[in-house]
Amino acid sequence: MKSYREELVLETKTKKAFINITPQVETALRKSGIQEGLCLVNPMHITASVYINDDERGLLKDYEDFLEKLVPHGPIENYRHNDTGEDNADAHIKRQVMGREVVVAVTNAKLDFGPWEQIFYGEFDGQRKKRVLIKIIGE
Amino acid sequence: MKSYREELVLETKTKKAFINITPQVETALRKSGIQEGLCLVNPMHITASVYINDDERGLLKDYEDFLEKLVPHGPIENYRHNDTGEDNADAHIKRQVMGREVVVAVTNAKLDFGPWEQIFYGEFDGQRKKRVLIKIIGE
Amino acid sequence: MKSYREELVLETKTKKAFINITPQVETALRKSGIQEGLCLVNPMHITASVYINDDERGLLKDYEDFLEKLVPHGPIENYRHNDTGEDNADAHIKRQVMGREVVVAVTNAKLDFGPWEQIFYGEFDGQRKKRVLIKIIGE
Repeated sequence: MKSYREELVLETKTKKAFINITPQVETALRKSGIQEGLCLVNPMHITASVYINDDERGLLKDYEDFLEKLVPHGPIENYRHNDTGEDNADAHIKRQVMGREVVVAVTNAKLDFGPWEQIFYGEFDGQRKKRVLIKIIGE
Repeated sequence: MKSYREELVLETKTKKAFINITPQVETALRKSGIQEGLCLVNPMHITASVYINDDERGLLKDYEDFLEKLVPHGPIENYRHNDTGEDNADAHIKRQVMGREVVVAVTNAKLDFGPWEQIFYGEFDGQRKKRVLIKIIGE
Repeated sequence: MKSYREELVLETKTKKAFINITPQVETALRKSGIQEGLCLVNPMHITASVYINDDERGLLKDYEDFLEKLVPHGPIENYRHNDTGEDNADAHIKRQVMGREVVVAVTNAKLDFGPWEQIFYGEFDGQRKKRVLIKIIGE
């Protein structure tokens, strides 16, 4: 069994952002030399998500609007986590709704995807350096 | 390490549907010959979910009602994704709430499940052919 | 390839509870002897979640409040699953929102985590014995 590990570093200019990281994961897979296996991608932080969906600008706006309506950032005093001096309780909840990680099949040395599947990094408390872990195991 | 890959093809008669695909995954596992490992099951489309829960008709109705109330299909002009000519923005959001994929342990050549765990395909934009990927790795 | 399997047994005193199970998963990983691989952790029940986030008391209260507002336990007759004599339809839905399972990278014989990542068991229908499965594969 082979394994491969890589970290991506991302720093978004805005507090909330969606970034397509499929090319970076494909590059990592090529470097791994793995032909058949599983590829895990997850943020190493707890106010961000890695998820798979469409790379379409309108949809990204819909995700943002849906999450902000479901879990408003403020008033920040509505969240007990913010009593600690933080103001990001909403980001911890948004990340749970969108999910933490994705596991992708690797087949014939490629991400085994349908036509529209793209890997996104969803940031809900950005403007600082965050890490994304790629771990691939297989043969 | 062994690996096994299979695609299921599903076409639901209704726009929204929940289908128990556990028997198909069990058949794939038998064909794989894998005794110990991990089994990934995911839709290859981005308006559908694979999830694990109870096969109980009332619960499936509760999921449908919960998702429709949380993310109504219409008015379709409330979603920016639908400005592209699509009418399925809600389906992309519903799939995120229910999750994309499941990873199941394989132990002694069986899906390592508790008594009520069943694998479901959740369709939110059906009435056309969709594929589900089963990827199993192990020994 | 090596594989390792362990079950945790949990019984919460309250119907709803969040329990940090990271130490138990770390112990299982040490026992496995696996250096590089993937670690799956999932409840074997369908009214509970395993998820990764911060171990901060205020945040756990925020999760509880968010889920109870989104999916109220009662009136129990609002859910068709409860027509079967159950009263836990809400717990099945809450578990979908928080997710079923986590997959964690194993690197250098450790859970490959960022500084704040902790594995939690989220119980939504407790006060009875429940099992959590840990399955580790790798080398």
